[in-house]
Amino acid sequence: MDKEIGITVKKNENFSEWYTQVCIKSELIDIRYNVQGFIVHRPWATKIIKNIFKIFERELEKTGHQPVIFPTVIPEENFEKEKEHVRGFKPEVFWITEAGEEKLDRRLALRPTSETAFYQMYSLWITSWRDLPLKLYQSVSVYRYEKVTRPFIRGREFLWIEAHNVFETHEEALKQVREDMENSRKVIWEQLGIPFLFFKRPKWDKFAGAVDTYAADTLLPDGRVLQISSTHDLGQNFSKAFEIVFIDREGRRKYAWQTCYGPGIWRIVAAIISIHGDDRGLVLPLNIAPIQIVIIPIIYKDSDKDKVMDKCNKILETLLEKNYRVHIDTRDKTPGWKFNDWELRGVPIRIEIGMKEVEKNIVTIFRRDLRKRMLIEDDKLIETIEFLEKDILNVLKNRAEKFLKENIITARNREEIIEGLNKGKIIRISFCGKEECAMDLKEKTNGGKIRGILLGKPEENFDEKCAWCGENAVNTVYVAKSY
Amino acid sequence: MDKEIGITVKKNENFSEWYTQVCIKSELIDIRYNVQGFIVHRPWATKIIKNIFKIFERELEKTGHQPVIFPTVIPEENFEKEKEHVRGFKPEVFWITEAGEEKLDRRLALRPTSETAFYQMYSLWITSWRDLPLKLYQSVSVYRYEKVTRPFIRGREFLWIEAHNVFETHEEALKQVREDMENSRKVIWEQLGIPFLFFKRPKWDKFAGAVDTYAADTLLPDGRVLQISSTHDLGQNFSKAFEIVFIDREGRRKYAWQTCYGPGIWRIVAAIISIHGDDRGLVLPLNIAPIQIVIIPIIYKDSDKDKVMDKCNKILETLLEKNYRVHIDTRDKTPGWKFNDWELRGVPIRIEIGMKEVEKNIVTIFRRDLRKRMLIEDDKLIETIEFLEKDILNVLKNRAEKFLKENIITARNREEIIEGLNKGKIIRISFCGKEECAMDLKEKTNGGKIRGILLGKPEENFDEKCAWCGENAVNTVYVAKSY
Repeated sequence: MDKEIGITVKKNENFSEWYTQVCIKSELIDIRYNVQGFIVHRPWATKIIKNIFKIFERELEKTGHQPVIFPTVIPEENFEKEKEHVRGFKPEVFWITEAGEEKLDRRLALRPTSETAFYQMYSLWITSWRDLPLKLYQSVSVYRYEKVTRPFIRGREFLWIEAHNVFETHEEALKQVREDMENSRKVIWEQLGIPFLFFKRPKWDKFAGAVDTYAADTLLPDGRVLQISSTHDLGQNFSKAFEIVFIDREGRRKYAWQTCYGPGIWRIVAAIISIHGDDRGLVLPLNIAPIQIVIIPIIYKDSDKDKVMDKCNKILETLLEKNYRVHIDTRDKTPGWKFNDWELRGVPIRIEIGMKEVEKNIVTIFRRDLRKRMLIEDDKLIETIEFLEKDILNVLKNRAEKFLKENIITARNREEIIEGLNKGKIIRISFCGKEECAMDLKEKTNGGKIRGILLGKPEENFDEKCAWCGENAVNTVYVAKSY
Repeated sequence: MDKEIGITVKKNENFSEWYTQVCIKSELIDIRYNVQGFIVHRPWATKIIKNIFKIFERELEKTGHQPVIFPTVIPEENFEKEKEHVRGFKPEVFWITEAGEEKLDRRLALRPTSETAFYQMYSLWITSWRDLPLKLYQSVSVYRYEKVTRPFIRGREFLWIEAHNVFETHEEALKQVREDMENSRKVIWEQLGIPFLFFKRPKWDKFAGAVDTYAADTLLPDGRVLQISSTHDLGQNFSKAFEIVFIDREGRRKYAWQTCYGPGIWRIVAAIISIHGDDRGLVLPLNIAPIQIVIIPIIYKDSDKDKVMDKCNKILETLLEKNYRVHIDTRDKTPGWKFNDWELRGVPIRIEIGMKEVEKNIVTIFRRDLRKRMLIEDDKLIETIEFLEKDILNVLKNRAEKFLKENIITARNREEIIEGLNKGKIIRISFCGKEECAMDLKEKTNGGKIRGILLGKPEENFDEKCAWCGENAVNTVYVAKSY
């Protein structure tokens, strides 16, 4: 492969440079757009993103969510209504102040998140318990004035889904939080193969305006965790600010209970690139790959061309009939160049067809995940592809889960915490529960953060004392450096 | 039907009020969002819109277009590059000038259209004839500071597709214009049943920056035409402004030839509402209906419930297996209320199941387009639905085409033009080709506009003199009032 085309650094040696090269060289994006933090999604990324949206939307609709499209702009007055929310988000808001030759009479925010757009309308739509539950979502861009930006990880414009739900009781809202976590598990883990830990965030690290925040962290190869999804118990904070009131089954006037859920589509793409990718580039599971199977004709003599192309076309037809996304690469390049190019882009399955395959009635199949070739008989094609569709995802899942598990350690004192953080570990500690201690830890470890209490399995405090400050421990938490 | 729920005016008597009521009462949208011209798309509209996007995207990809997602913002300096373009769009631009507590060092436009975002990148991506043709599209919102707004017709935020293509020669660009027109025909006419006339716009009514503009007009029931799609021959205007240069097959440095195409998704929704709708509300073809078939259980006695529901569920299963979007309405309302509700929303097929249907092994089917019931035997269900899927679209197409054709007339003098415009007609005239004459006509007829030369069939001038000014005619054009 041409040096300038292929990835020139190893993922384990220089993750940051490897990541940038994969983003650019697999033609996912272009970062040369002339506004910082706003990137161009090229066709390869756009198709992957659309496939991920589709998987999430299907799962959300199964649990009773309906799609909406809300305005991109939010008037400043809406923002002001929930005090914590405005305090948290205002420093990050882009403001529209002019239109044509005119100065607007009030500022309009580019939505950084849409609570204050949705809930304005919810107060109009909800009057009775019969209107509940209300479960709506949208798949959109949001905008935040971030200082430091990085493709798919932190942008001034980024893509996500936001679901905004309303219930009669707090119990139902908490049940929704669990449903959201299950949605993340079903999509991000089961279908995209990205493992994560779901934490209840400490109270000083909540979503602005929430009662409690629950968030999924995955671990990137450089030892920093990345939040890829979060769901928030909003309690009645916003329903009181926006007057979302309903008449309950007993005829009483009540404030509604709310949740919001945000799978970070952009960050999930970042996790897929970083965790599944290897030194040759992207590695994609079939369910999101823009091209699932690429067919490469291998023609050494002009006289072989018709026979080889004929077989390629037959295979194409067979696979198209089964609804696979297939492509024959007929570009005027060598087979080796094409192999490298499609490996860089992460196409999960490659089929190579030359005279050997024509004469022996076989197909050469290369799987991107293991970089292994196999020869199969023509009539085993479909069953092999069906097997690979599952097996490739399983290989990616197992590899990713192994990496995450291997990098979770337990620490009992400051030295072990510092050593673990330096090695890029997620660290389990007994903790005093105090914000001052968390801030001290963060400062002295140059960024180590309390990610929260692990959800899913109850954990007892394994030490009586906080591993950082030595005071009485109240719970077990996880510490990590993060994006 | 409750007065307050159903449509209270007739489409032919008060189109404007009828349109607003359909938009709101079928729960397509909410216009109470607190920023003018920015509307909330509720689930029913959102699903219709997503289905329309999907149909267009499929057709665009068949002709080699690839999807991208470009930034929502465009720096002011990009805008300034093409003189005509900036002159045309600047009065309509929303400007972002602040972020957080800071004043930005340059203004950022919310895209009113994305030529100046795309072509900035095209100058980086295109260097050789091997990079051409380049055919990219995005499905997005755009933003324009319009004074008067109307749902789906004119908004400050609206949804569309924009395709931006680049070619080696002007001939290829003109071929693309024809392909775009064919794309509109295949989708808007063949699949959505909206007929239109494709015009070459007069030079004073071109897209800002284009060499020539070709646009599709459909006729709304109030006698005003609505532009629903347009494609532009940009010549080398933008390639010169943005330095989109390639080395041609002979090694020469050349400016590229460009086109852009914009099917107006919002306006196509407006046309579907207005043209297919009737006094009871929306009428949707199956291919875009969020629910294609609604099943209404008709239960008079509790003892019948199990049998009726059992049959409803069996029909649901049978139709789901065939991938229809089906729903059983089990709400605690009368069948009559449900009939009206689903008719208002335009669900194309209703299945009514009561004890008669259970005992006689039949199904009662109601088609929304003709408002007719039919009884069929159970085992004819699928073939009947398959027939209706095609037939309903055909009925809608024929009805719409008849309306359009009946409202095109020929006029030979001022009186006939004025009379025709007052009757809401599209008027064919011999024309002098002069802008002054067009402006005079517009002023004196209170808004009659020259829509352009009809494409598709060559028309000879039927009179030697211009029907408006009496000078020598140079071509045959169409005049109409418009949105």
